Amino acid sequence: MSQTDPATPAVIDCLQYANWSEEVFREMRAGGVDAVHATIAYHENFREMVSNIEAWNGWFQAFPELIVAARSGDDVRRAMATGRTAIFFGTQNPAPIEADVGMLEICHALGVRIMQLTYNQQALTGSGWAEPRDGGVTAFGREVIGEMNRLGMMVDLSHAGERTTLEAIEASSRPIAVTHANPRWWRDELRNVSDDVIGELAASGGMLGFSLYPNHLKGGSACTLDAFCDMAKRVADKHGAGMLGIGSDLCQGQPDTVVQWMRDGRWRKQLPRRSDSEMPAGAAFPAPTDWFAGNKDFPGIAVGLSEAGFSSEEVAGIMGGNWLRFFDETFKPAETGQ
Amino acid sequence: MSQTDPATPAVIDCLQYANWSEEVFREMRAGGVDAVHATIAYHENFREMVSNIEAWNGWFQAFPELIVAARSGDDVRRAMATGRTAIFFGTQNPAPIEADVGMLEICHALGVRIMQLTYNQQALTGSGWAEPRDGGVTAFGREVIGEMNRLGMMVDLSHAGERTTLEAIEASSRPIAVTHANPRWWRDELRNVSDDVIGELAASGGMLGFSLYPNHLKGGSACTLDAFCDMAKRVADKHGAGMLGIGSDLCQGQPDTVVQWMRDGRWRKQLPRRSDSEMPAGAAFPAPTDWFAGNKDFPGIAVGLSEAGFSSEEVAGIMGGNWLRFFDETFKPAETGQ
Repeated sequence: MSQTDPATPAVIDCLQYANWSEEVFREMRAGGVDAVHATIAYHENFREMVSNIEAWNGWFQAFPELIVAARSGDDVRRAMATGRTAIFFGTQNPAPIEADVGMLEICHALGVRIMQLTYNQQALTGSGWAEPRDGGVTAFGREVIGEMNRLGMMVDLSHAGERTTLEAIEASSRPIAVTHANPRWWRDELRNVSDDVIGELAASGGMLGFSLYPNHLKGGSACTLDAFCDMAKRVADKHGAGMLGIGSDLCQGQPDTVVQWMRDGRWRKQLPRRSDSEMPAGAAFPAPTDWFAGNKDFPGIAVGLSEAGFSSEEVAGIMGGNWLRFFDETFKPAETGQ
Repeated sequence: MSQTDPATPAVIDCLQYANWSEEVFREMRAGGVDAVHATIAYHENFREMVSNIEAWNGWFQAFPELIVAARSGDDVRRAMATGRTAIFFGTQNPAPIEADVGMLEICHALGVRIMQLTYNQQALTGSGWAEPRDGGVTAFGREVIGEMNRLGMMVDLSHAGERTTLEAIEASSRPIAVTHANPRWWRDELRNVSDDVIGELAASGGMLGFSLYPNHLKGGSACTLDAFCDMAKRVADKHGAGMLGIGSDLCQGQPDTVVQWMRDGRWRKQLPRRSDSEMPAGAAFPAPTDWFAGNKDFPGIAVGLSEAGFSSEEVAGIMGGNWLRFFDETFKPAETGQ
C-alpha cells in the first residue's frame, strides 16, 4: 500500500451513504479521503443494522488495502500511515437501540461511534425537523445522551428539530455535532440549521459539518464552489473556523429509489411502484454540482476554501483536522477502564 | 482492590452458568477464581443473547471491584493483578448465529470467545449427544469452524455427539476443546467423552475440562474428591496433564426450573406446570458433592489433585495454567490486523 506522509493533514468526510463498492473505495483513495463517517442505518431495526455491519465486515476483509474499520482518532492516523480510508459507523436514527438504553453499549461494541437522536420524524429520543411539533429531548433522550457521553459516542443532531437540537446541546455533558447541514440563512430549509444553533454549537465546543447535498445548497445543483466557500467564510468569521468540517451527505452511486427509502422508510405506507422509472415528482436525487460529484472531488474544495480567504491552517482544519481533534475528544470513554 | 502476586498461578473455571449476583461474584473472589467462562446462551436467539450481554454490561459497571469483561489471556493477567475475576462469554449452542456465518464476527465483536457447535440436539452445525443419529459436522459447521479459526474463537464440543466431535477436531485448523465433560469409562454417559475423543484432543493440542456436575461424576452426588482426582490422574498418566483443566458446569444458585429450560428450551413443547413445586421426576438439580458446592470450593480441588500424586506444576496447570495457555493460543486472530 501507498504510504502517506504523517505530516499531511487529514481529509475527513463526516457523512456519506454511498452505494459502497470497490469503485467507491478506490475513489476515496484517489480523492485523498482519510476517513468517512458511513451511515449504517436509516430506518433499520437492530437486527437489520447488524446485517449492514456484516456487509461492512465483508468489505473490510475483501479490500484491506483500501479501507479499514475505525473506532478512534488514532485509527485515522493508522489508516493514513498505511494509505487507507478509515470507516466510522454511524446511524441517522436511534431505531436500532429500540427503547433500550443498554443497547448503546451493544452498538458501541459493534463499532458504532455516531448516532443521530432523530431522523426527520419523531424518534423516542426527540423530534425530527419534519414533525409538525418539536417536543424537544424526551426523558429517554436524556438517558441516551448520558449513556453516549459515558461510552464516548458522538451525538449528532443533523436531522433534529430546533428545540430538540438546542436542548440536546444543553443536556449533553460533552460537545456534540451537526455532522451535515448548512446555515438556514444561506438556504432557508428546516433541514438546515439556524444561526442560534451554530452559535450554541460553537459556545459548547461542538462541530458543524457543511453538507454538499444540492438540496441543502443555495441555488441547489447550480450552486458554485465560490458561493459555498464564501458561505463557509462568513460562518467562520462569526463563529470561528475551528468548529467547521465537511459532512458531504454524499450518496454516490445510489439509485433514485434510495431517496424514497430515506424519506419514507416504513413509517408511511408506500405501494410498490408500477414501473421502475416511475418516481414521484421531485423524489429523485438532485444532480450534483459541477464541483462535487464524488469522493474524487475533495481536493478542489480545499482550493476553493483557500481562495475564499482561509489560511492554510484553517483549510486543513475544515478539510479534516477539526473532525480529527473532535474524534479524539469525543470517542474517549468518560470512564477510563479500571 | 486487593492485589494478587503476579507469580500466583491462575485459577480458571471454563464453564459456569450460575445465577449471577453480587453474592456469586464475591464467592468467586473468596474462592480465588481468576477467570470464568460464563454461558450467555443455551437456546436463546441472537437478540435474546444480546439482552444477556446487556445484563452482564450492567454487572460489570455495578461491580467493577469484583469482575471484569475478558477477551484474551492477558485480560486474565490484568484481572489477577487487580484482584478481580475475568469473565469470558460463551454460548452452549450456535443458535445465536442463526444460519449466518457472518454472525460469528458480530458475536466476536460483542465479546463472545467460546461457542459449542451443538447443545444436546441437532444444530445447523452438527449433532448433539442426545440425537438418535449423529450426522457429523455439517457443511455449514465446516464454514463455522473455519470462521472461528480465523477470528480466534474456541470451538467447544462438550455436548456434541461422538462423530461430530471427532470430525470437528479433524476439520479445525487450530486445537479445540471439550470444556466440561468427564471420561465415559469413568461414568458411562453419552454426555461424557470416549477415550478416543480424549486421545484425539491430546494429539491435536486440544483441552479437556473436567466437569464437577454430579450427573457427570461416578457415583453422582456421593462421588468423593479422592475418586475425582484419581480419575484425573489416570487420564493424565495416559494423555498428559498439560491438556487438562476444570469446567465445573456449576449452576450455583439456579432454581430447579432452569434444568428444564436447559433440557427442553423451546424445541420440545412444554405446558406450564400447574404448581411451582411440580417438577418432573429426576428433573431437579442433583445435590452437590460435599467437596464442591460453589466457587468457594476451588482451593480444595488443588489439595486433592496434589494428594492424588500430581506435581505442583501439574496442579497449577490443571487449576488454570493450562486454560490460560490455551486462551493465549486460541483467542489470537489467525490474521493479524493490517
